[in-house]
Amino acid sequence: MDKEFFGYFAAILTTVAFLPQLIKTLKTKKADDVSLITLIMFIIGVLSWIIYGYKISSLPILLANLITFILNLLILISKIYFSKR
Amino acid sequence: MDKEFFGYFAAILTTVAFLPQLIKTLKTKKADDVSLITLIMFIIGVLSWIIYGYKISSLPILLANLITFILNLLILISKIYFSKR
Repeated sequence: MDKEFFGYFAAILTTVAFLPQLIKTLKTKKADDVSLITLIMFIIGVLSWIIYGYKISSLPILLANLITFILNLLILISKIYFSKR
Repeated sequence: MDKEFFGYFAAILTTVAFLPQLIKTLKTKKADDVSLITLIMFIIGVLSWIIYGYKISSLPILLANLITFILNLLILISKIYFSKR
């Protein structure tokens, strides 16, 4: 199989994967078991991928990580919001 | 700052980020709030990154995703194990 297929398939899956977590958190109104440190480290990491993607002019890296960043930021905000209610 | 710095920084952070989640899950003996669908999709995605890294002969992509794969597989196994007790 074409190697580029695995790249695009991987990029789509590791990006869209966070949508079910966001939906679950919004439905159950809690994310106590989700690690806050993991979320913060991952978001900073993804932000660094965005900067890297911009610097090397890679639109796929930039786009995929922008979506991952938004999804994980929403999970983090939801977690903090629901834990304070 | 050197653009490669952001790449390595990003790779390290988005890899090591899953260690606190694993530790938290093992400590609290539960991961009910962690989405099963997210874990499965993410693991398949990371596995595709490993295949991609191998196919394009990129050791950084291969190594980083191998660690991410192991950590997330352990989180998945822990989640299933603790949910059945």
